[in-house]
Amino acid sequence: MAAPATRRRRATISAVRSDEAAGEKGGLGGRTPNKLSCHRLQESLLSSASSFSNYRGILNWCVVMLVLSNTRLFLENLLRYGILVDPIQVVSLFLKDPYRWPAMCLVIVSNMFIMVALYTERQLAKGSFSEKLGLFIHCLNLSIVLVFPVATVLLLPSVTPVGGAFALSAYTIVLLKLYSYKDVNKWCRERDQVFVRNLRRSLSCPSAPSNGKQTVSYPGNLTVKDLYYFVFAPTLCYELNFPRSARIRLGFLLRRLFEMIIVLQWMVPVIRSSMKPFEEMDFSRMVEHLLRLAVPNHFIWLIFFYWFFHSSMNLVAELLRFGDREFYRDWWNSETVTYFWQNWNIPVHKWCLRHFYKPLLRRGLNKWLSQAAVFLLSAFFHEYLVSVPLRMFRLWAFMGMMAQLPLAWLVARFLRGNYGNAAVWMSLIIGQPIAVMMYVHDYYILNCGGDV
Amino acid sequence: MAAPATRRRRATISAVRSDEAAGEKGGLGGRTPNKLSCHRLQESLLSSASSFSNYRGILNWCVVMLVLSNTRLFLENLLRYGILVDPIQVVSLFLKDPYRWPAMCLVIVSNMFIMVALYTERQLAKGSFSEKLGLFIHCLNLSIVLVFPVATVLLLPSVTPVGGAFALSAYTIVLLKLYSYKDVNKWCRERDQVFVRNLRRSLSCPSAPSNGKQTVSYPGNLTVKDLYYFVFAPTLCYELNFPRSARIRLGFLLRRLFEMIIVLQWMVPVIRSSMKPFEEMDFSRMVEHLLRLAVPNHFIWLIFFYWFFHSSMNLVAELLRFGDREFYRDWWNSETVTYFWQNWNIPVHKWCLRHFYKPLLRRGLNKWLSQAAVFLLSAFFHEYLVSVPLRMFRLWAFMGMMAQLPLAWLVARFLRGNYGNAAVWMSLIIGQPIAVMMYVHDYYILNCGGDV
Repeated sequence: MAAPATRRRRATISAVRSDEAAGEKGGLGGRTPNKLSCHRLQESLLSSASSFSNYRGILNWCVVMLVLSNTRLFLENLLRYGILVDPIQVVSLFLKDPYRWPAMCLVIVSNMFIMVALYTERQLAKGSFSEKLGLFIHCLNLSIVLVFPVATVLLLPSVTPVGGAFALSAYTIVLLKLYSYKDVNKWCRERDQVFVRNLRRSLSCPSAPSNGKQTVSYPGNLTVKDLYYFVFAPTLCYELNFPRSARIRLGFLLRRLFEMIIVLQWMVPVIRSSMKPFEEMDFSRMVEHLLRLAVPNHFIWLIFFYWFFHSSMNLVAELLRFGDREFYRDWWNSETVTYFWQNWNIPVHKWCLRHFYKPLLRRGLNKWLSQAAVFLLSAFFHEYLVSVPLRMFRLWAFMGMMAQLPLAWLVARFLRGNYGNAAVWMSLIIGQPIAVMMYVHDYYILNCGGDV
Repeated sequence: MAAPATRRRRATISAVRSDEAAGEKGGLGGRTPNKLSCHRLQESLLSSASSFSNYRGILNWCVVMLVLSNTRLFLENLLRYGILVDPIQVVSLFLKDPYRWPAMCLVIVSNMFIMVALYTERQLAKGSFSEKLGLFIHCLNLSIVLVFPVATVLLLPSVTPVGGAFALSAYTIVLLKLYSYKDVNKWCRERDQVFVRNLRRSLSCPSAPSNGKQTVSYPGNLTVKDLYYFVFAPTLCYELNFPRSARIRLGFLLRRLFEMIIVLQWMVPVIRSSMKPFEEMDFSRMVEHLLRLAVPNHFIWLIFFYWFFHSSMNLVAELLRFGDREFYRDWWNSETVTYFWQNWNIPVHKWCLRHFYKPLLRRGLNKWLSQAAVFLLSAFFHEYLVSVPLRMFRLWAFMGMMAQLPLAWLVARFLRGNYGNAAVWMSLIIGQPIAVMMYVHDYYILNCGGDV
């Protein structure tokens, strides 16, 4: 790990324990002026009254336990399946027979919509399109981005559920990014018009950081390179001048790459083998199966979280020298359901706040109604990403998301502190597999002729 | 949990996330002055470079997972065994036939040695005993405290290993307490003599806190009540005026009591059933068994730690209004083996520092030699508490403790930060069951005729 950070953390520890250090240096008077007294009024660290919160070691403990209890499994799987993560094989398979990878083709087609958005913005900047025409083209374009993959997935039977989910996720990300792109460019034009009106004909962008680096101002950002940097950057919110890290740290890059590969190699057989019980499952004893399913499902979700939001996003950000690495916040400390939803997925949360929640507020909508609208939008996309690839419309994901609203109220009303935190964990551990189970159940009924 | 603490912790969170709060209040300018910019240069929280360390939620997660995965087990055990923790039953059993409880009788006898120490100190205070005679009687008394239970356990075959370990632990605690008592009273006399020599005939104790409470000064502390308060107080270091908490908090008391009982009720059958595999164990496949043993052994140790160092000690302290609740420090964040040994057991660490390490330093011993001497003493007591009850002298515990010295050097030399922390966890998870296994192996060979 980075040495300065370690030293900083050590420094914190030694600041807390300075009395100890003084005592260690010898001389009985280190701790208190008098050697006859060696106690002082204080709480135990684990007591909630102590307000101590440094449990970094517990996180390491979880990792050590996970590694220890899976080492044998991992070695066995390496020997049995070989190396599963082989990008060259994937690419060569795709090039040999692109029609066998319809989801991948679908993703490649999405570039067309990105180019349409850029073209529209360029025309708007030049004044060739009126604002109304531009908005119409953007809306049309975004609607197609939303509907086109759905039509493809539903009409092409060769798209697998996994492939479908992948393609739909990619399209959803493109949709949110292009929406943000359209909004920010419009804000730029609006600001420029205000400047013109105020007769302040300054061409420089006042928001640009002026620390010696080159910055881009409005019409100058409408380039293919700039747009594609945004498309690949791990964020959903467009900005003319993203903060950039100074350089690519090779050690950091390799650690994240190692994590990504090791998790993939380890997860693929685990998920495969966890699918087996479903095939032999007796759905009459639902509750028992649910509890048996809950813990592995939760672990898979946690590991997926780490893999996607920490390893992968940091890897991409490091490669692009994208500076803002806040992809999640300390949702593990959530004492309310709301805090969890605001902090576990920062790119989406940021987008919702900037392009949906705040515009609603500015239009005069009530704060609570706006929050409910955000949940409604989120519920829609959860359903969209699950129902279409599985080709079943059951609304379980939608209802699961909407159930968060009364749950949030209940937890905030009746539980505080560590109890609230435990309730959030319980809802994650128990709630998620219920929704998963519903879909799995219906999927098997639908696809295995209902003979379960 | 205590509401003020929760509020304080929330306050910390909201201080960290003040930008979020500002953003939530509406108005696009909450976060940055410009709505066009919404990213800033920062690391992910899980990166070691972020120096973020608030993982209280992970601790709650561990508790939730432990409870969830053991609920059924716990209910089954309650139905099968009934309530195991029944103090009335224990007391009545003991009163009916005290000779069936030799370990308990042994503990009761220890009061004699406590009274001898008090008598000696009183004579020393009055001047009836010279310092030399007093030291001789104290040393004799402490030697008997060390040797008497060993002789009893080895000579009386009715003492079980568990009973023997319990009695020896009690005697060790009494030994360390009386040693501290003797030292502190001697220091008081020495200080008083310095005062007399300096012609400053002040009778008040300068170290006593003068915040309106009654404080005790030297000869006034030599009472039965004062000594027994110290004997029952959860510390090994004597002090004339212990810091006291303002009142007994009933809620806190009940929570700790609930934890104590629930853990006992849950642990007893788990330990019993974990003993079974030993009886059927094939010792030829040692390594595999070791790994299978390591994880449950580690969990038992962790739960024992919480039960003893948090629940029980806080319960006793709350009852006695003993103010200093620092029974452990954040050993879970240990990045070196030394840090772990200095922080997991504060009563013993404090005693070693005050009555062994610092006196050695004052006698001019080297710092490293003194540290090794502390480890040697600690290794002796580890061996003492294991070998005598099992009636086997194998030195595994002694060697296990002494092996900490090279291990500490290796970890400090080659590993930093989270890697050092992981190494400390590994040594705990793997090292402990090796020692346990050695004793179990030898015990079965010895007591089951070696036919394993």
